[in-house]
Formats: sequence, structure tokens, C-alpha cells
Amino acid sequence: MGIDLKADLRLGILGAGQLARMSAYQAFRYGIEVAVFTGSPASLGSSSAEPTSLVTPFSTEAPFRDVEAMVDFALDCDVITLENEFIDADVLRRVRNASGKPMYPTPETFDLIGDKRSEKETFEKAGIAVTPWAVIANIEEARKFGEIHGYPFVVKSSKGGYDGYGNETVHTADEAEKAWGSLGGYARREIIAEAFVDFRMELAVQVARNQTGIVVYPCCESIQEGHICKTVIAPARISESLRHKTEELAVAAVEAIDGIGLFAFEFFLTHDDRILLNESAPRPHNSGHYTIEGCITSQFENHVRAVLGLPLGSTRMRRNAAVMVNLLGKRNHPAIAEQTATLFHTEDAHLHIYGKKASKVGRKMGHVTVLGDDVETTLNRATWLADHIML
Amino acid sequence: MGIDLKADLRLGILGAGQLARMSAYQAFRYGIEVAVFTGSPASLGSSSAEPTSLVTPFSTEAPFRDVEAMVDFALDCDVITLENEFIDADVLRRVRNASGKPMYPTPETFDLIGDKRSEKETFEKAGIAVTPWAVIANIEEARKFGEIHGYPFVVKSSKGGYDGYGNETVHTADEAEKAWGSLGGYARREIIAEAFVDFRMELAVQVARNQTGIVVYPCCESIQEGHICKTVIAPARISESLRHKTEELAVAAVEAIDGIGLFAFEFFLTHDDRILLNESAPRPHNSGHYTIEGCITSQFENHVRAVLGLPLGSTRMRRNAAVMVNLLGKRNHPAIAEQTATLFHTEDAHLHIYGKKASKVGRKMGHVTVLGDDVETTLNRATWLADHIML
Repeated sequence: MGIDLKADLRLGILGAGQLARMSAYQAFRYGIEVAVFTGSPASLGSSSAEPTSLVTPFSTEAPFRDVEAMVDFALDCDVITLENEFIDADVLRRVRNASGKPMYPTPETFDLIGDKRSEKETFEKAGIAVTPWAVIANIEEARKFGEIHGYPFVVKSSKGGYDGYGNETVHTADEAEKAWGSLGGYARREIIAEAFVDFRMELAVQVARNQTGIVVYPCCESIQEGHICKTVIAPARISESLRHKTEELAVAAVEAIDGIGLFAFEFFLTHDDRILLNESAPRPHNSGHYTIEGCITSQFENHVRAVLGLPLGSTRMRRNAAVMVNLLGKRNHPAIAEQTATLFHTEDAHLHIYGKKASKVGRKMGHVTVLGDDVETTLNRATWLADHIML
Repeated sequence: MGIDLKADLRLGILGAGQLARMSAYQAFRYGIEVAVFTGSPASLGSSSAEPTSLVTPFSTEAPFRDVEAMVDFALDCDVITLENEFIDADVLRRVRNASGKPMYPTPETFDLIGDKRSEKETFEKAGIAVTPWAVIANIEEARKFGEIHGYPFVVKSSKGGYDGYGNETVHTADEAEKAWGSLGGYARREIIAEAFVDFRMELAVQVARNQTGIVVYPCCESIQEGHICKTVIAPARISESLRHKTEELAVAAVEAIDGIGLFAFEFFLTHDDRILLNESAPRPHNSGHYTIEGCITSQFENHVRAVLGLPLGSTRMRRNAAVMVNLLGKRNHPAIAEQTATLFHTEDAHLHIYGKKASKVGRKMGHVTVLGDDVETTLNRATWLADHIML
């Protein structure tokens, strides 16, 4: 069942950032080799060295549009997975078909969620409520969206947004033109508008799925600052029934896209307790970093198991509460984590640094996870510890 | 305090086996680079590729007697540590002094435990009971040892024994000559004799120590088969007071050698409840693999913290019981872990495979750790799961 854990089994990851790196740790524990396709020249000595290139002898450096290089890379691997969703589904399909190597998630899944328009249509078709949205073909349609759904609303390029990049908030009819232009509307990039949801909480659920079954992580709460995930609290501070409802929606969502691998789904919980699917990620996700220590099987271990066709592991939490706080760069400087002593002295507080060579203001450099007996104490402790680290 | 966690911080490990590999995983989590000195030609593609060379781009292949190569290696690193105790203390001192790089454990610690004779003398001087022993300079002295301490007894070469290699059991006066000869007595290798201890249990304790303090893991029980560690049970199935007494002896032992790093001490518990120090290991040890999932901070994480001068982490167990069973090769064959499905389906059972390319009968290929609420159930489960894996 699944792929044999043979000694020269090699997992190929398209991408070499911190998500690939944390997946690699888990593959290593199974005795597996990890090869990464870095997408950009980033030699080891340079300040742009990729996090995962620093933890494996098997790195290929070539642009993500170089299909031939990706096929060669795949031919040296046994299974291919991805750490982000920015490669075109058609490119992925060519790589898989030309190499003959299994690729999870599949290009067919990416067909369904590869851009924001397809994603919304796919989930709506499956009966999952999403935030009100529309394709915006011209500035008039943008203004009309504002009239119907009110201001502010958000316009996004259909492809390639990430952590708030490729997003613009439109507060007035006058701002619509500027936002539409800056996102590439004049250059015929597909733009969608999304109504602003006055949510009371952002939720996230990770799900792993393959031919052996499906496992769902506890619904957690995600706190964003400036469109970047800052804090994740597990479990979310809402009723058990709302958490279960959200987890069920995540299962429906992964089934709607026939997802094989590890997926994360982000939801808005409205003030009247509606749950709207906001975004999907076909990969381990920042909202699931707490699972490394917080759950019996981490999202990264289940990612590796899922793509290898192995039975999936328990998602049960080890303690009542887990809180993850991102360590965002506080300066533009060669990376040094300073003032870590208090964290190291705190029981069940865990430091993760990603190995990026340069710290930049707001860049994700690492994270802190704290486990505890109750959510509020744990949240306070994690926030305090993360705030004190200089990076 | 300690060494700054800067992005190009590089930990150099002399040795590249599974212990180095598991330490590397933890160094990676802190964003640190790991370089290994493999000690033997072992190119990546070959069947002799070393476990840790497969998880880092920074490998140096040269013999352990090549001091110049080791100095060059050290010059590219920030801190040096070791995964075994087979390099001469004088060689280590030359490497440290010529490179100017800190090395933990220190050559001075290795002076005290680098061979079995020094080790026994050091611990006896510190008031720690060891198994009755004597230096054996000739066959007559071997026979005399048997007369005093009875048969059988064990003769060991003072340097370089490991997992039963370099040991001979002497059952009769007639066997003394053969054993003395086969261990190199005629070639003037130093031989010691140890009385056979009719123990009721073998115990082990891991201790981490550096300038910030000392932490001690729970006293665990170690079950050997054919001189190779097979099963480790934490906590040991003895009274709490005996466990504490053993843990105190481990603290005294690490202080006696001014140990900086992670150390493991193995003890015999006699039928009349005496605790005799049997062996010491100046490194993470097979008896401490259960700490990866079993304790809040693993022996590997505390090893990395100790050598970097960082505050040490909690050794508290996550659940009541943890049992580790080694996966020893069952065949001479390219390594493939088969029949793993039951393990993957079992909650809180964890598989570790070391990435060795070839399985050999009796070779340590990986291990299984199971956590549970009570020791007996967990022991049965872990034994059953490990037995069913074919490797």
C-alpha cells in the first residue's frame, strides 16, 4: 500500500522555502531523500540561499517556467509535490506527463483552484458558501460591485496573490480605477472583486487526504496583521459545534477538488455565525505550524504521508491549547535571532527559525509555538515570548 | 549568552551516522547549517552513503586520522561536536587548538573517559560505584581475575568497543587466553576485565549540561539482545526513589567529567538494589531516542542547545509511558521498510528510518517509539509493531 519506504526514495519538492524545509524534516525522519527545485539562482553561499537548499544535497536551480529542467528534476525523483500554488496547472501537467512521475496535489486539482475565479466557482458548485464576489472586466463593473455590496471591497488579481500582495482595498468609487489599473486590469489580467466581510473571526482548518482516507485538524483561529498571518490559536475560541461545522466544510472542500496531499482552508466567521470560505491552500500552511508540537501528527508529516500514499496519522492535540506566533523580521539586517533566552527557559515553548540569510521588516523568519492547559494563558505567553525576540 | 542564532551559524559534527542525522534535524529547526565530517569515502550515490550526508549540502569525506582535513573542516564551522567517542582526545585537542573553534564535549572530557580504564578510574574517584574491574596485563592476571570475581567475566579492549564489538566473555580459565589474544593482548592493546554483574535491570539516564545549567531525563530501562540495545522503556519499572538515585548518579557522573553536551550513562541495577555505572556515552544515545516524542525537549534538541551554550529545555515526559524499539535489519538487502501500515494506523506510534542504503542482519536501521498511558500496554504495542516491520 502506498509507496515503499526504500532507502533511495526521493521526494521532489517544487519550491524551497520554509514550507518545503519543514516538510523535508519529516521526510528525513522516514529515511527519505528530498530534492528541491528552487525556481531561482540561489547558490548556497549567497544571501538569497533558499531555506530548503541548506538542508539537502539535492537542489536544482532553474526558473519555474523552464519545463525541460522541471522534467529532468522529476525524472530523478519518485514523487513530486509543491510548496506553493504559483505554477500553472498546464505546466505541472506537462512535467508530470513527460516524466511519468506521480505529482500530488495533481494538476487536475490545480485546474480547479489555480486562480481565484475557478476556486470560487468550484467551491460554490459544491455548495460551500464563499464571500460575495464577481469577475471585474472593466472599471464600470468595479464601481457597480461597490454599489451592490458596499464599500470598502477588495479587488484581487485572479492569479498569484499571496500574503496581501496582489490585493487592493477600494474605499470609494474613485479608488476603483486606481486599484483596477494597479492590479493589471489594463493589461488584461483577470481581476475579481470580493465584498468586504465584517467577520468576527478568521478560522482555518488543515486537511490531509489520499487514497487511504482523510484526516482533519482541529479548527483554529487565525489573527492577521496587515494581511499577514500573525497568530494562530488552536482550538478556535468558538463553540464546539461551530468548530465541527467548519471542519466539515473543510472536508467538503478537499473532496470538491479531489485533493491529494495536505490542504488548508481559511474561513470568515460572520457576526451572525455564517462560515464563508475565504481562501484555500494546496499545501502545508502557516495556520498549521502549531501542529508540529501541538498535534500527534504534524501537518508536515501528514503531507509527506499523503503524497506517498501512506496511512494518515492522528490529528489529536497533545494539550488543551496551542498558540503559534510568527516571527516577522523587525529590521533589514543579516538574520540573527536575539533575545531568545526567555523562550528557551519557558517549558513547552518551541522556537523555529527558517534559515533565511537576511531579515527584512515583515518577512516571515520563523515562528514560536507554545502549548498549554488553557488558551488565554497560552496566548499571552506566546505573544509575550515572540514579541521579545529580535530578528 | 551562548552563541547567537545567526543565519550562517554552522554546527560541525565529526561523524555522519544516525545520531548526527537526528541532531541535524534539530539544528535545522533553529535555522542552523550542519556540516559533517564523514570519516570515510561515501559518495552520495553509493550504497555506503552516510545517513547525515543525505540531509546536508555540507559534507567532508576524509579519514578521522587526517588532522589537517579535520582542521580545515573546523575552520568552516562555528562549533564542533562529535557523534562518537572513537577519535583520540589528542587528535581532538589538535583540531580544536589549530582551528580555534569551540569543541563540545571538550578534549579534556575525552581525556577522562576516552578509554575504559580512564573512565572507570574517573568515576570511582568521584565516588560512583562501577562494576568490579581490573587492568589485565597478561594471561595470568586474567585467570587471577576469574578466581577472585568468578566466571564468567568479560574482557574488553580499553579503547573502541561498541555494541558488543571488542568484548569477549570468559567462561573458564581455559577461555581466558583465547579472549586475551583475540582482543589484541599480544599486540599490547590495553585489556581490562570486568566482573559479570548478575543485574536485575539495565538502566540509562541522559543528561545535558553546559554553562547555563544541567537537565536530567527520566531514568529509563534498557533491554539488550546480544549486546545490542533492543528496547527502551521510560520510565524504568522500578521505584521512584531508585530512579531518582540513578538520576543523581548521572548528574554526579557528568560533573565528574566536566561534561558539556549531551551524555548518556548506563547502569546495572543489582538484585540487592545497588546501582553500578556500566558505561558512559559522550553524545546522544540510543537509550534516549524515546525523548524525541516522549519528552518536551528531545535529547537531540538539548544536545544542540548544550553545545551552542543556549539554556536547556524541559525533560518532562509528554505522557506516562514511552517505549522505543530498535528496528534491526532482518536481512541483507537494499533497505526497504515494509509492512509499516499497522504502525502508521496506530495513534501515537512514530516511525524513524535512518536512510542507510543497505539493510544487514542486526544493523540499526531505524526505530519505533510509542507513547501511552501505562507502561505495559505501551511496551506490548511497541514490541508488536516493531516486530511486524520488515526492514
